Amino acid sequence: MSDKTLQLHPDRLFPTDARVRDIARSLYNEVKDLPIVSPHGHTDPRWFAYDENFGNATELFIRPDHYVFRMLYSQGVPLESLGIGRQDDAPVEQDPLKIWQLFARHYRLFRGTPSRMWLDTVFSEVFGLTQVLDENSAGHYYETITRQLATDAFKPRALMDRFNIELIATTEGALDPLAHHQHISGTPWAKRVITTFRPDDVVDASREDFADNIRALGEMTGEDTQSWQGYLQALRIRREVFRRHGATATDHGHPTAATSDLSQGECESLFARCLSGKANAGEQELFRAQMLTELAGMSLEDGMVMQIHPGAYRNHNPLVFNHFGRDKGADMPSQTEYVQALKPLLDKYGNEAKLNIILFTLDETTYARELAPLAGHYPCLKLGPAWWFHDSPEGMLRFRHQVTETAGFYNTVGFNDDTRAFLSIPARHDVARRIDCRFLAQWIAEHRITEQEGHELAYDLTYRLAKQAYKLGDA
Amino acid sequence: MSDKTLQLHPDRLFPTDARVRDIARSLYNEVKDLPIVSPHGHTDPRWFAYDENFGNATELFIRPDHYVFRMLYSQGVPLESLGIGRQDDAPVEQDPLKIWQLFARHYRLFRGTPSRMWLDTVFSEVFGLTQVLDENSAGHYYETITRQLATDAFKPRALMDRFNIELIATTEGALDPLAHHQHISGTPWAKRVITTFRPDDVVDASREDFADNIRALGEMTGEDTQSWQGYLQALRIRREVFRRHGATATDHGHPTAATSDLSQGECESLFARCLSGKANAGEQELFRAQMLTELAGMSLEDGMVMQIHPGAYRNHNPLVFNHFGRDKGADMPSQTEYVQALKPLLDKYGNEAKLNIILFTLDETTYARELAPLAGHYPCLKLGPAWWFHDSPEGMLRFRHQVTETAGFYNTVGFNDDTRAFLSIPARHDVARRIDCRFLAQWIAEHRITEQEGHELAYDLTYRLAKQAYKLGDA
Amino acid sequence: MSDKTLQLHPDRLFPTDARVRDIARSLYNEVKDLPIVSPHGHTDPRWFAYDENFGNATELFIRPDHYVFRMLYSQGVPLESLGIGRQDDAPVEQDPLKIWQLFARHYRLFRGTPSRMWLDTVFSEVFGLTQVLDENSAGHYYETITRQLATDAFKPRALMDRFNIELIATTEGALDPLAHHQHISGTPWAKRVITTFRPDDVVDASREDFADNIRALGEMTGEDTQSWQGYLQALRIRREVFRRHGATATDHGHPTAATSDLSQGECESLFARCLSGKANAGEQELFRAQMLTELAGMSLEDGMVMQIHPGAYRNHNPLVFNHFGRDKGADMPSQTEYVQALKPLLDKYGNEAKLNIILFTLDETTYARELAPLAGHYPCLKLGPAWWFHDSPEGMLRFRHQVTETAGFYNTVGFNDDTRAFLSIPARHDVARRIDCRFLAQWIAEHRITEQEGHELAYDLTYRLAKQAYKLGDA
Repeated sequence: MSDKTLQLHPDRLFPTDARVRDIARSLYNEVKDLPIVSPHGHTDPRWFAYDENFGNATELFIRPDHYVFRMLYSQGVPLESLGIGRQDDAPVEQDPLKIWQLFARHYRLFRGTPSRMWLDTVFSEVFGLTQVLDENSAGHYYETITRQLATDAFKPRALMDRFNIELIATTEGALDPLAHHQHISGTPWAKRVITTFRPDDVVDASREDFADNIRALGEMTGEDTQSWQGYLQALRIRREVFRRHGATATDHGHPTAATSDLSQGECESLFARCLSGKANAGEQELFRAQMLTELAGMSLEDGMVMQIHPGAYRNHNPLVFNHFGRDKGADMPSQTEYVQALKPLLDKYGNEAKLNIILFTLDETTYARELAPLAGHYPCLKLGPAWWFHDSPEGMLRFRHQVTETAGFYNTVGFNDDTRAFLSIPARHDVARRIDCRFLAQWIAEHRITEQEGHELAYDLTYRLAKQAYKLGDA
Repeated sequence: MSDKTLQLHPDRLFPTDARVRDIARSLYNEVKDLPIVSPHGHTDPRWFAYDENFGNATELFIRPDHYVFRMLYSQGVPLESLGIGRQDDAPVEQDPLKIWQLFARHYRLFRGTPSRMWLDTVFSEVFGLTQVLDENSAGHYYETITRQLATDAFKPRALMDRFNIELIATTEGALDPLAHHQHISGTPWAKRVITTFRPDDVVDASREDFADNIRALGEMTGEDTQSWQGYLQALRIRREVFRRHGATATDHGHPTAATSDLSQGECESLFARCLSGKANAGEQELFRAQMLTELAGMSLEDGMVMQIHPGAYRNHNPLVFNHFGRDKGADMPSQTEYVQALKPLLDKYGNEAKLNIILFTLDETTYARELAPLAGHYPCLKLGPAWWFHDSPEGMLRFRHQVTETAGFYNTVGFNDDTRAFLSIPARHDVARRIDCRFLAQWIAEHRITEQEGHELAYDLTYRLAKQAYKLGDA
Repeated sequence: MSDKTLQLHPDRLFPTDARVRDIARSLYNEVKDLPIVSPHGHTDPRWFAYDENFGNATELFIRPDHYVFRMLYSQGVPLESLGIGRQDDAPVEQDPLKIWQLFARHYRLFRGTPSRMWLDTVFSEVFGLTQVLDENSAGHYYETITRQLATDAFKPRALMDRFNIELIATTEGALDPLAHHQHISGTPWAKRVITTFRPDDVVDASREDFADNIRALGEMTGEDTQSWQGYLQALRIRREVFRRHGATATDHGHPTAATSDLSQGECESLFARCLSGKANAGEQELFRAQMLTELAGMSLEDGMVMQIHPGAYRNHNPLVFNHFGRDKGADMPSQTEYVQALKPLLDKYGNEAKLNIILFTLDETTYARELAPLAGHYPCLKLGPAWWFHDSPEGMLRFRHQVTETAGFYNTVGFNDDTRAFLSIPARHDVARRIDCRFLAQWIAEHRITEQEGHELAYDLTYRLAKQAYKLGDA
């Protein structure tokens, strides 16, 4: 057993000034038990469709969490020793308990990181663990977690209820058959587990499988996707299918925020060139840019909310990519520009108050300089919450401090957990609620908003804005 | 009537820690009643020249304030419904009371913004209003404000006295006849209301009216402005006229901070090309760059302080520009670079201790990285205060936190209100005074400056540095 | 005498909240007396080799400190009046007392800067001065300091002991004969005063003396440095010599972080072109880029830690450079990019857990966006502390706040004083210890780390991580 008690202090993340902390507590008490609305995430719809038990602690907490093995890898822990499967099927550690022990031995590396806070919260609140994870308590942890995971109370749907998750959106590619969502279609769960349309696979011509994907898109939809018009029509058809499975939003993960507004003739020849496999990097970028504008136009037609997530340099480490594949903690943020990049799209659709485009960034320098001024003017733009590396107490505080004075609160859209780590969802929302209450408490204490405004805002930021921005019903 | 009381807490914006707040209060008490020096702004000199009453609440607070309708527009309120005149004379809302009510209905959008703080301060301190503005109190607000505006006590000169404005600088283009300043010339008001020379209209060759403006400049000055030398001479003559109307400073609003130092022959042919209307965007940028260096040279000759305000992407929204014109809240900041951009000018004049160049930015990333190191070395450079989107409590704090350690306090120049909203001037200066005192109090409490130094600095930042930097007399 | 008492408050830089301050004090009390490890700096090895007395106050505090005369120069004080020698031997002020008095008269300019805090700490703690430096106390200061400097207790080695400096690294160019380190070789001081290998002089082909340096390198090593392979071999030989004089690290001060990975044939022809003096700026940049990768490979061979310090625009002011030479306060930070720039090197060596590359930056926007994600993934990367302009209380806080959540604490390497101002070293380390304890105390008070973790981390950040990252023995 560890000699250290695991303590989740009820005032964690609150301001240290006693008077301000009291205000934060009072705001938090009113929102902490509100239902969780999770309009953007990456959980596996299979869980909610078939409601099968999760496996062991290692499978649940380590293998799928690139935050976790990224940090271990940075300190010299080989990914093989964490059981991360190799593309070449070279042997990797198979014993989940050994992997768990290795993780526990390095747990101090996470000090001060959001991963540590999420994990400790899950360990304590979901599994009732009472010691800090370390080498000594590793076995007890592994056994306690794995044993509970086998019970009915830890099945996905039971946890959905226990976690008070009102709605969760998963994310599927344009070609996904949506079989898992199909499985729950017509059941009450269809209202709580919805999909999101993410067409990067049929929009990003730099992918090796692009031409294949376009062909598959044609087969799925019966459209001639070798023609520009047929391709667009096929996208419309897939959007409609996604909407039937609850989707209210689309998602676009592009390297930059570039948009363009080409003539139809230019679009046709650019699309043909991308299909031919002869497009260079600039043409592929232009095609993605054009497609953001096309997809915005479709959103205006069909009412789907458009999420733009630019700025990740994917698979920066070729050795890790070649040995272990995508999403292994080797994606890096890059400088991102919005004011010039979005102009073609905004010139065309920016003044449409019925269009909802939610912008995200990995480049915090754009908060005050570009994103808040854009969202504080264009009717179609709203700002998504602090994202990915910035989904953390400091990151969220920087977001509010840098965005609010120019964009106000009402051009933001509440919190996204953006995670595939299902068990961490309550912990992540709890961090967001604590930090928003902390921020509001500070401004109340500085007499920048009134206490009554603070209470309204706490509710809005926790619950109402997410439902409204993602068109998820009244709040 | 609104059911909520409008409260301006005496400690607003101060630190929440009781001990630090006490220090802030004590600093603030010494500077809060100091005269307002407003060396950079955009009020209408006509007001001070003819001293006529303002119109109604809507005309005063909404129509001219792009901060206000920008936010309303971002949330779907059409500009037509706010009475913003269309270029094509299409009908817009005419009823000022209806516009005011629409504004009041959406007043919650401004929560947490500086606009809200400025407006509440004016409502309370200038008009004696005691409820929060909302749908219910809108009519009472409109009537109370409009009635008072018709009285002698609310004429511009009376407000100048009431607001304790020692000096205010307006801004006029190079071709402005300065008729309103002429009207007060020779009266005691000429010392309190001065002009600023802003030659963008005859320096920015990307404007459609550039060639016309150069011709007009020639007519005004009797110089041959079709020649490079005549053009420069004409600028010198206009500067002299502006100085006779009190101007101590020039102002330059360029898209970037680019400067250049071309040979005379290159200047002549570049100028000719710009005049011919055949210059491309790069040549127009080069001409603006060259002119910053030329104008710095003139400042060295005639002693005028040079203000450089780069980095705004003007009129980003073409629909808004075409329908409603300039300055409608659709200007966006862009990334701005100074270290390379200013080098040609600095190579030529950077070591002139008699030259005063005040740099501003919309790109806060340059505070610690470029602006503070430049101002902390070059004798000619000083840093203007947090500007435009950053003229806010958080923006001002970021400025001081990021600039002070490298540039010190004495390479900064006090506060600019930079506004056309005359009634908000005391509120804006009050925010700056509170935030500076808060910042100083924090550093006193952390024993980074002494209490005595803090008191001297509070005076300097509020009053002395503005007078000194803008050459407005002893302080 | 000055009428103001010089007070170094024991709680300086600590949080103002009493509860948090108590935690900070308790952390600080445990680390304040730990030995100083100074693995990166620019003191003169001659001092420690021959142990001669320093000269007068002016020679010690003003002439070598570009932070000091940079600030004075920015406010119009000519460098000549500060006794800074001119390249053309034009007369400059020679009287050290007059220079000291000029400095004292402008001492208020440093309010709020780290220079002021370092200087006051030295004045008080090293020289026992009790009044603030100003015009009145200048003579007393000069006399008190200069008198003490002549005593045995103020000889360099005595100060090393008094300051409790366990180890100090100096920095020498690749061609440096290391005579001073040679002098102490074999004595106990050889363990406390080590060199660092800084090969910019033989790597940066934009220097006028590059070809000469390469020739000299050949002569020193007996290698044919006109050939690519001979040049590389010569570098290996010099590294070996430096290691014999204690060096555990190399240092690289490049304009950008660019790296490249050319074929051997490309390297040979690029090197030849650089040697010929015909390389253009792009080729010189490419050569520096290639050399970072080559030097990383050598570090992997010989175990030396590699420090990369990119982003300084050196000698920005040509007049100051021509009259006074390098390092006169006219170096400016520039925007720096890492994610793309380092990719060639990382593609080759990024996954080597035995390689230690420590990254620094002058562009704080990269902390959260690029550096923390890179260091939080690549086994070879660690982050150096806040550097140069950012080696300040605010700069250090921004570093910790922006880096920790993604990189953790254990991908950072403790503090570097990076100074040639020997007497300020304890003051600089003391600022770092205070700020780290303040940061940790805040996170303890917010229940983000436990008190026990905070105490371990305070020790790690103060002492252990520096020893470990620079391979300086067990801690």
